Amino acid sequence: MGALEEAHLAAAAIVACGCEDDDEEEDLAQLDEALPGDAMEPAVRALLVGLGEDERREGLRRTPKRVAKAFRDGTRGYRQKVKDIVQGALFPEVGVDKRTGSAGGTGGQVVVRDIDLFSYCELCLLPFSIQCHVGYVPSGGRVVGLSKLSRVADVFAKRFQSPQRLANEVCGALHASIQPAGVAVTLQCWHIPLPENLKCKSSQGWIRTSHSSRSGVFEGEDSSFWNDFVALLKLKGIDMEMDNHSSFLPWCPLRPHEVLVCNGHSKRTTTNGVISPKSVSTPSNMVSSVSTMLLSLGEDPLRKELLGSPQRYVQWLMRFRACNLDVKLNGFTLNSAGVYERPDEDASDHRAISSELHLPFCAQCEHHLLPFYGVVHIGYFGSGDGEGDRSHFHALVQFYGCKLQVQERMTRQIAEAVYSVSHRGAIVVVEANHICMISRGIEKIRSSTATIAVLGDFLTDSSVKACFLQKVLDTVGLEA
Amino acid sequence: MGALEEAHLAAAAIVACGCEDDDEEEDLAQLDEALPGDAMEPAVRALLVGLGEDERREGLRRTPKRVAKAFRDGTRGYRQKVKDIVQGALFPEVGVDKRTGSAGGTGGQVVVRDIDLFSYCELCLLPFSIQCHVGYVPSGGRVVGLSKLSRVADVFAKRFQSPQRLANEVCGALHASIQPAGVAVTLQCWHIPLPENLKCKSSQGWIRTSHSSRSGVFEGEDSSFWNDFVALLKLKGIDMEMDNHSSFLPWCPLRPHEVLVCNGHSKRTTTNGVISPKSVSTPSNMVSSVSTMLLSLGEDPLRKELLGSPQRYVQWLMRFRACNLDVKLNGFTLNSAGVYERPDEDASDHRAISSELHLPFCAQCEHHLLPFYGVVHIGYFGSGDGEGDRSHFHALVQFYGCKLQVQERMTRQIAEAVYSVSHRGAIVVVEANHICMISRGIEKIRSSTATIAVLGDFLTDSSVKACFLQKVLDTVGLEA
Repeated sequence: MGALEEAHLAAAAIVACGCEDDDEEEDLAQLDEALPGDAMEPAVRALLVGLGEDERREGLRRTPKRVAKAFRDGTRGYRQKVKDIVQGALFPEVGVDKRTGSAGGTGGQVVVRDIDLFSYCELCLLPFSIQCHVGYVPSGGRVVGLSKLSRVADVFAKRFQSPQRLANEVCGALHASIQPAGVAVTLQCWHIPLPENLKCKSSQGWIRTSHSSRSGVFEGEDSSFWNDFVALLKLKGIDMEMDNHSSFLPWCPLRPHEVLVCNGHSKRTTTNGVISPKSVSTPSNMVSSVSTMLLSLGEDPLRKELLGSPQRYVQWLMRFRACNLDVKLNGFTLNSAGVYERPDEDASDHRAISSELHLPFCAQCEHHLLPFYGVVHIGYFGSGDGEGDRSHFHALVQFYGCKLQVQERMTRQIAEAVYSVSHRGAIVVVEANHICMISRGIEKIRSSTATIAVLGDFLTDSSVKACFLQKVLDTVGLEA
Repeated sequence: MGALEEAHLAAAAIVACGCEDDDEEEDLAQLDEALPGDAMEPAVRALLVGLGEDERREGLRRTPKRVAKAFRDGTRGYRQKVKDIVQGALFPEVGVDKRTGSAGGTGGQVVVRDIDLFSYCELCLLPFSIQCHVGYVPSGGRVVGLSKLSRVADVFAKRFQSPQRLANEVCGALHASIQPAGVAVTLQCWHIPLPENLKCKSSQGWIRTSHSSRSGVFEGEDSSFWNDFVALLKLKGIDMEMDNHSSFLPWCPLRPHEVLVCNGHSKRTTTNGVISPKSVSTPSNMVSSVSTMLLSLGEDPLRKELLGSPQRYVQWLMRFRACNLDVKLNGFTLNSAGVYERPDEDASDHRAISSELHLPFCAQCEHHLLPFYGVVHIGYFGSGDGEGDRSHFHALVQFYGCKLQVQERMTRQIAEAVYSVSHRGAIVVVEANHICMISRGIEKIRSSTATIAVLGDFLTDSSVKACFLQKVLDTVGLEA
């Protein structure tokens, strides 16, 4: 098995040291201190300038430090040693007679499902999300502490990766360090799409793929251990057969024509309809700044998978470059389509409010240079004389969303723009997932942020506000 | 507001130091080194001896070290400073004219929903699970970095807490450090029940409660900010009104007659039907060891909420004390009820297999002294002459489950016991959630572990194994 051989090499390269089990965090903190991180911050500063930003403004002043720290934390796997993690967590466990069955320390199977991880796409240097499932069959009368399966997987996730290589490396490293009868690793991975391909729901539009790697008794077409592994995943609703339905986009949208070399069970398709990256300019000084960052993180920018990555990362960032034009509200007429009425029995106070709900967006957090994405809900007093035109609102959201932003400011700016044409009042709710909340140390993967701005009559009349919020609630789950 | 006053005091007690934003992990690592942790390990060793265990056996040898580390990590909030976290993460943000509305740096509202946390119940010292939702209304033209809301909440979660006090402290500390127009905190908390009250599904049977705390503009019956907060939570399906349906058990099952003092919006009911803790012996040397541990963690064992806690913790542990009796299989007859047949067209090979599925259990992880809980699925060849008796299997699962265990061993032991009476074969699948995987540094909250042991004909005939696994899959989601 290619994966196994590869990882045996990786394991051979791992140098044992005498640290104690469970002490890797402290160890890591010390390593981080000693890293030559000084080159990172000037490089990030060059990116900010290239994006047309004032690097000295308050929100960006410490961004180079934050980005450098996020990248260092996110690639800490380069500086971690599998042997340190597993060593001291191998426990003797009696098995059963091999003639009668498999269980405990000989045979049987141990599967940890739904380990949430984050890694960095080596093609574009953006984080991607992983649900990792690991199984192994104990051998030699010993089992490994369950949390170590997760920790070892994390060592390889915290690097610049492709999904299949990640599966192979986790599989190989576990095989080499635990020395079991076999290891199975299945990853379900999600890559953020280009902003224009984001759908309304938070995870819709993401590019999904699944990859597996197996060693030892899991190998072969009719391995009963592999069949058991697949069955134990199904008990948690994890069905790898389902994944090919959603793989309608290339894995990394910044490299649309990529064809991955897939070992094991991987499903990949390619598609058209992705905007050519050539349409975005990539200043060479920004590209070389990113190469400097890679070098500073301990990576080799000349490794073949990384050759075009600095340019792709800059392509991504340049989609969010500063734009000093004011939004053009010419031709922005408020529609009466979808007008609904407030449930107020006082007819004299009867006013029509309109709404545009679930408008998708993708912005770039100015504190961490990481995407935040979600939907915008807009309410206003309908003029009653316009044509329904969702695209005007969509353009407004894109204008304020597609830049270095914070969610609070974006919410206010959209509300003020709508208020400038709908003078009686405007209300804006933004719901977003922040990758900076989930891919760094915080790892609050389920968290989401909502912001609300209320102007004019929506502020003074709480019943019209309540009416709008109820309308949003009524449409949750109904959006396309 | 009582909560706010309380937290103002807490905030006043916080000493500022000159550390940089985002450096608290490194800071913490240094603090941990300096802690007088030496008293912890002998205390844990005394607990193991009190549980009738051989503290020198391989699986337990390093347990005192692991338990001490888990408790230190789990109570690190005593040694963290809110001011360090928030300081440096307050960003100037323009608001709108207060006469026209509220947004951005003045008014508006920012809500972070679904922050997953773990805390320790101060009544029994076991971890409990939290979904935390925090909202605030910016004031003074500044907003706080979103991740800081989660970090500050975690500072107070990583202590011995009651849900209401936790809500109050998070609310008050955020109010004092951000100085916004107001803060709202809502917690949904889950406490592990007594083993005998666990239900089949992983989170069923857990004791659920919700608590809120508010300050400033969120206070008052008709606060429009509070109404907006509630509406923004509802967009994510979080409905606090729903929680009173499931609060049919007292919060801490080790203290069944407790009535919490609830400020703000909290829902608590009490109930009967809980086994009296007096039925479990609590050796005084074990109780005093736990008091020593509290002292070593920087807590005051004489604080009134903690007065009975060491005893309750020992009561919990003593439910898992070692039992040297062999399981009695007398009267253990295999039933033919629920017998199903393998889908095999070869009639000569036709054999009936029986199953008992979704048998709940709660064990104590011997590596960390933390619960793992879930369900056991058992398959065997039905003798066809017994009465259906799920309770025999239930007793078998309790016998092997209710002790210091590892899931791999428990799976094997149950399989061997069933095999000893069903000589043709036995198959056992155990699915469990390990609190040690989610409440320590790993925090893989969605992870679950499945183990499988296969004996006799289930090993040699893969179609009967597949038939059993399909039966388990068919019943997922159907169990009571």
